[in-house]
Amino acid sequence: ISLPEMASLEGLGSPSSSQTNKKTIGHRGIDPTGETTYKKTTSSALKGAIQLGIAHTVGSLSQKPERDVLMQDFEVVESIFFPSEGSNLTPGHHHGDFRFKTYAPIAFRYFREMFGIRPDDYLYSLCNEPLIELSNSGASGSLFYVSSDDEFIIKTVQHKEAEFLQKLLPGYFMNLNQNKRTLLPKFYGLYCVQSGGKNIRIVVMNNLLPRAVPMHLKYDLKGSTYKRRASPKERNKSLPTYKDLDFIQDLPDGLLLENDHYNALCKTIQRDCLLLQSFKIMDYSLLMGVHSVDRAGEEASTAVHDHRRAQGQKALYCTAMEAIQGEAKGKTPPQSNESLGGIPARNSKGERLLIFIGIIDILQSYRKMCVFSKITLLQDTVSVHRPGFYADRFQKFMCNTVFRKMSLKTSPSKKIRAGVVSAVRKANTAVSGQSHQPQPLDAPSSANVIQTNAEQTHTDQDTTRLSNSSAVSLTSETEKPGDGGRKLKTVTVK
Amino acid sequence: ISLPEMASLEGLGSPSSSQTNKKTIGHRGIDPTGETTYKKTTSSALKGAIQLGIAHTVGSLSQKPERDVLMQDFEVVESIFFPSEGSNLTPGHHHGDFRFKTYAPIAFRYFREMFGIRPDDYLYSLCNEPLIELSNSGASGSLFYVSSDDEFIIKTVQHKEAEFLQKLLPGYFMNLNQNKRTLLPKFYGLYCVQSGGKNIRIVVMNNLLPRAVPMHLKYDLKGSTYKRRASPKERNKSLPTYKDLDFIQDLPDGLLLENDHYNALCKTIQRDCLLLQSFKIMDYSLLMGVHSVDRAGEEASTAVHDHRRAQGQKALYCTAMEAIQGEAKGKTPPQSNESLGGIPARNSKGERLLIFIGIIDILQSYRKMCVFSKITLLQDTVSVHRPGFYADRFQKFMCNTVFRKMSLKTSPSKKIRAGVVSAVRKANTAVSGQSHQPQPLDAPSSANVIQTNAEQTHTDQDTTRLSNSSAVSLTSETEKPGDGGRKLKTVTVK
Repeated sequence: ISLPEMASLEGLGSPSSSQTNKKTIGHRGIDPTGETTYKKTTSSALKGAIQLGIAHTVGSLSQKPERDVLMQDFEVVESIFFPSEGSNLTPGHHHGDFRFKTYAPIAFRYFREMFGIRPDDYLYSLCNEPLIELSNSGASGSLFYVSSDDEFIIKTVQHKEAEFLQKLLPGYFMNLNQNKRTLLPKFYGLYCVQSGGKNIRIVVMNNLLPRAVPMHLKYDLKGSTYKRRASPKERNKSLPTYKDLDFIQDLPDGLLLENDHYNALCKTIQRDCLLLQSFKIMDYSLLMGVHSVDRAGEEASTAVHDHRRAQGQKALYCTAMEAIQGEAKGKTPPQSNESLGGIPARNSKGERLLIFIGIIDILQSYRKMCVFSKITLLQDTVSVHRPGFYADRFQKFMCNTVFRKMSLKTSPSKKIRAGVVSAVRKANTAVSGQSHQPQPLDAPSSANVIQTNAEQTHTDQDTTRLSNSSAVSLTSETEKPGDGGRKLKTVTVK
Repeated sequence: ISLPEMASLEGLGSPSSSQTNKKTIGHRGIDPTGETTYKKTTSSALKGAIQLGIAHTVGSLSQKPERDVLMQDFEVVESIFFPSEGSNLTPGHHHGDFRFKTYAPIAFRYFREMFGIRPDDYLYSLCNEPLIELSNSGASGSLFYVSSDDEFIIKTVQHKEAEFLQKLLPGYFMNLNQNKRTLLPKFYGLYCVQSGGKNIRIVVMNNLLPRAVPMHLKYDLKGSTYKRRASPKERNKSLPTYKDLDFIQDLPDGLLLENDHYNALCKTIQRDCLLLQSFKIMDYSLLMGVHSVDRAGEEASTAVHDHRRAQGQKALYCTAMEAIQGEAKGKTPPQSNESLGGIPARNSKGERLLIFIGIIDILQSYRKMCVFSKITLLQDTVSVHRPGFYADRFQKFMCNTVFRKMSLKTSPSKKIRAGVVSAVRKANTAVSGQSHQPQPLDAPSSANVIQTNAEQTHTDQDTTRLSNSSAVSLTSETEKPGDGGRKLKTVTVK
């Protein structure tokens, strides 16, 4: 039995107005007045607690002297009690007593600083303006809020996800220092609201699809074809979240990018996948919003949106364009403004598009891995794979099927017999991992592998790992012993 | 019973010429021909194996594509066998079969890159020119080599020290990314030569006291006064390594620095101490070489040395001056050249000096801590302290007693009754931790402490740590509950 893989960011972009889309899933429910609840706490009480808690923790943090982040900072949890009658440290409120916990405050302060988010802006965006609940938050049972200025997403996460994020922090720190070009989620804070014996954990992230930019298409892509089609119910929505098979059908020629953008994007995806693989993370998605410049022109609404967008996002490296180019806003203002941070692209009809992308759902790995270890390997060989296979398939799908170089023009005759069939074939090729196309960039599969002459024996040269139970093999599974007469053998990290 | 604390870098600066200073200590011995041995391996065989091994590992690393360092890279160990008859991968040699292990190759490649060491230079300095054995390597039983160009020190380390360095690597990475200003050792590589069932582990580091600069005084300082006087035997050497009590006696007014240099130096020491404390490291020393510009002028030998020095060190942030200023060479060439990388200072007589410093012996903590846990606290309350106390005392001694601001002029009348007595008193004050002098910089002691109003109870606000047995308290022990009527309470990381 496969897990239904549904984008937890579905519906992002449409603020909660109608009650019709609300569903009771997991911890998310609806109370008799029609208000959303999470673990029986009303959304308004949760919003109130989040705003009080973040305001306090950011304020108290600003009083601490700046200092370097140390290894143990990743494990610190600060906690403050908010009695409803108020205390010397906390204001009175009408939400009932609660406790607010801040995970790794010094580390996240550093991350925010790296992303160019000033404490004042963070505080103002999250605490001084109302948080907007997003309806239709998908099948994960999470609750989503967006800040009024479109800058931040707040998402409830499960206990295991919060724990997993904490474990990721050292590696996340390392990546941030080495690699500004990343499509991974930007984590700005991890908190917990504790009240009535319930723990509600939330994470603050960047907003990939700002409401200010109208999207004409939305995809959640994994590189898998198994059950990767939007349900009829999903299709009836005003902006459905389509999936891999829908993409292959609707855009058989993919999205065409300029060479430079294509290379930057694929290199970014490759590095991100290597990192995710190193953490044994799987089942992440590429969330993609497609804005049609031409259609938007017809709708004559861009002027308003441009203005709003320009005022909106303040964080660095947060637009898709910045994420793949590793350049912060301000350096290339003309382009950024023009493209609203999206990556310019065209479909095969030549329509001008802007692509907004990011990798999402990277924290659910822990939960999924539990499932993975319980059920046997045989039951689902398509949707649940080892991280290396998942990463490999993901990046091949993105860089061969979804995104293509503009210069690679398909001849009209080919185009006719192309269509769905060839695209599905391509996707299958990617899935089976037997693609022999030369990879556009240096493959990460060889990253941790020593290539030795075939005459050498294992004992002559090997790579071992000291006492680490969670060691990860970074060898690509696509590399087969009989892979040509290269007379090379791969010795992997054991 | 206290541990004899002796500088393991004693005698650094004098190449092995006379056999008279050689002693059999620990694993270090002398064979019948008079050659130094380590674990019964002759020094020449060890040098040969090191040069063959490093040449191979750097070479094979350069064939691997550049990629980001991942968390698990810190735990990788690469191994290659060198049969004396040679193999497809390795040349023949006359040292007997051995195996060469490289720890965390990708991580150290990154570190070397951060320090501006090009693979070619690393290879050339270590493998193409003879390694020079340093005689008189002190009581640690370690063997020391210096590269012909004065750039690199190779030191044998014990199993526990190598293991400890491996554990430090993630934190070392973090520090390197946040803090270019550091006096901590620069670690360029960790290797192991395995032959005849013996493991000889070596670490490659920066050379603090290049032979090219003649030192007129040398100190190993810890901030302790207990048994911190050079032995009569040590004093008879041509360049003895003096200790804390010798410093207080010989230089009662300390070393006078310009304000900017003093502030930069003390801030650097403070940050380094906080990091060492966070790793529970103790018993490190400040190694200091003092070059007298005036005396060197009399000796009329600087011209030669300048030339040699200018050609020598290539690594970035490696001179004392760069270490405290966080600026790499090239940016301020006139000053660097003039001062040979040393920090300009004066003694109370106005003599012009250049100070060469670095923090050494940070890997022995593990061994010392074992001793610490076996013997009880009572036996030695001076030399063995908790890391926080050690760090605090260390930095107070350096910033109050050893280094002083030039502008703070002592009046002549005071000078007369000052001398040894007041200096010893000062040192004792630092030792007992009761100094109430305002600290020159923001104290790291308050770094991880939340200061709350005294009316608040513990349950209202606390800072907890998740499931980490090796949690470190970063609270300074000098902070006492009855420390004035500040109405502040410190709640520490539990």
